[in-house]
Amino acid sequence: MGERMIYERIALIGLGHIAGSIGLRVRADGTAGEVVGHARTQATREVAVARGLVDRTCATAAEAVAGADLVILCVPVGAMADVAAEIAPHLAPGATVTDVGSVKRAVIEAVTPHIPEGVHFVPSHPMAGTEQSGPESGFPTLFENRWFLMTAEGADADAVERLGRLWRSLGANVDTMDADHHDLVLAVVSHAPHLIAYTMVGVADDLRRVTESEIVQYSATGFRDFTRIAASDPTMWRDIFLNNKEATLEILGRFTEELFALQRAIRTGDGALLHDYFTRTRAIRRGIIEAGQDTAAPDFGRGPKGGDA
Amino acid sequence: MGERMIYERIALIGLGHIAGSIGLRVRADGTAGEVVGHARTQATREVAVARGLVDRTCATAAEAVAGADLVILCVPVGAMADVAAEIAPHLAPGATVTDVGSVKRAVIEAVTPHIPEGVHFVPSHPMAGTEQSGPESGFPTLFENRWFLMTAEGADADAVERLGRLWRSLGANVDTMDADHHDLVLAVVSHAPHLIAYTMVGVADDLRRVTESEIVQYSATGFRDFTRIAASDPTMWRDIFLNNKEATLEILGRFTEELFALQRAIRTGDGALLHDYFTRTRAIRRGIIEAGQDTAAPDFGRGPKGGDA
Repeated sequence: MGERMIYERIALIGLGHIAGSIGLRVRADGTAGEVVGHARTQATREVAVARGLVDRTCATAAEAVAGADLVILCVPVGAMADVAAEIAPHLAPGATVTDVGSVKRAVIEAVTPHIPEGVHFVPSHPMAGTEQSGPESGFPTLFENRWFLMTAEGADADAVERLGRLWRSLGANVDTMDADHHDLVLAVVSHAPHLIAYTMVGVADDLRRVTESEIVQYSATGFRDFTRIAASDPTMWRDIFLNNKEATLEILGRFTEELFALQRAIRTGDGALLHDYFTRTRAIRRGIIEAGQDTAAPDFGRGPKGGDA
Repeated sequence: MGERMIYERIALIGLGHIAGSIGLRVRADGTAGEVVGHARTQATREVAVARGLVDRTCATAAEAVAGADLVILCVPVGAMADVAAEIAPHLAPGATVTDVGSVKRAVIEAVTPHIPEGVHFVPSHPMAGTEQSGPESGFPTLFENRWFLMTAEGADADAVERLGRLWRSLGANVDTMDADHHDLVLAVVSHAPHLIAYTMVGVADDLRRVTESEIVQYSATGFRDFTRIAASDPTMWRDIFLNNKEATLEILGRFTEELFALQRAIRTGDGALLHDYFTRTRAIRRGIIEAGQDTAAPDFGRGPKGGDA
């Protein structure tokens, strides 16, 4: 095993945005002896080979996991149970199975029953990605300075340590979190905001008195960010909402309550309430910039995205 | 008058983000003989001179507009009426008064009664800006490829033409629009999205079971864009909501209705409805990219914003 090698063979099940970014980086760094991939369609498998996301592909997930010491499930959350059932009989003894799902409790419930004795399941979530999807969209620096969360309650300590080592080599900051808490935090910082963005874009599209060309033409401010979020993969997001139902609905309930209070302030002309509220939210932004999760560089509302100016 | 000169003297009332960007560009291009500015605080006036936003400043708006053939009101929408009343007796005959407010009907009602005979008022809205504010934040390319909308019903044709020429020289695409329609379009593409972003950030901040440090730390996806929007100037946005009340409340009503439908789909597990909805909103994004208002380059969810990768 080479000095930098962490796994002998990694199997990527699903070859979309996240899997592609993992494969490109692992192969560039030599952190695995071999990267094997599976995707359902031949077209995706061909792109994966052509772009060098993997060393080789297999037509079935079962073949792909054979002999792998790390299996990464990179399919939508709703497909995890079926994939786990399919690969279970073919997993190598001592192998680690992990996933990249944005929801953890539901994935644990879907996958755990299928994991054979002697195989280690480490549920995980790399908090990275763009609004793009598919095998063409990954890139090797996707995980740089992003969070990789493991919900590793009761998982094998060696398996957790080794998986963490891999993700640090991908550039991620590795941490662990309880699955239910993970799902609540994600409902706040990701799932509810996505549903809200989808909704606002849908409203704009529905409105008869504002034409679609006007929406498109004048989308510079605010709304443009919503459309970017609302361009994310429909299957992935359908599955996230259906599998993080309670936390998402709880946050949306709180959101609606708060929105109604602000609407009432607008209706009654309560400028002081609005000003106080907007001053408070501004302070949160400063915290995020200080935490290094974004820069103070303004978004100039034009392409290429901001960084050019 | 120099070949490039469009106005002999431009007076900027208010020296924030928009005024600063105008001043820097006009002075660099020589499209005005002189740029005079006024801001209420001496500190702002000093920054404006130090950064070269203007040639000189005046302690009062009345002094600043004296002898100017173009006066641009760059104050929050709620301050327009008072400023118009103050400057009215000092406006030069034949001068053009314009503004940069994000709401047009309320500004027309606030300013028009004060405009003396022989002075031309051309209500306007440059659709540009970042979440930053203040005299330090402007830059001369802010308006490049952005829209400049005039709600010029009944305004003097020569004044409209000349003002359009200035804004084209600033890099903007110039168009005209009816004031009420402008306010509705802006409610959709900007005002409602901003209130929604403010609300979501406020909810996150309120939530006791998710700590502030978690929100800050894990704000990479979706929420990060909301915090950027929610960092916008509180006074400016308070005034926008209070002065575009009806259109904003109408759009928020439609938004809530739609959000409830999606929440119900999540609760009942209607994956087909969610998938169809998210597929439709994705198509709108493509339209915006095709219209050149954003690029397909993904937002990599890290600083510096996207453009670096």
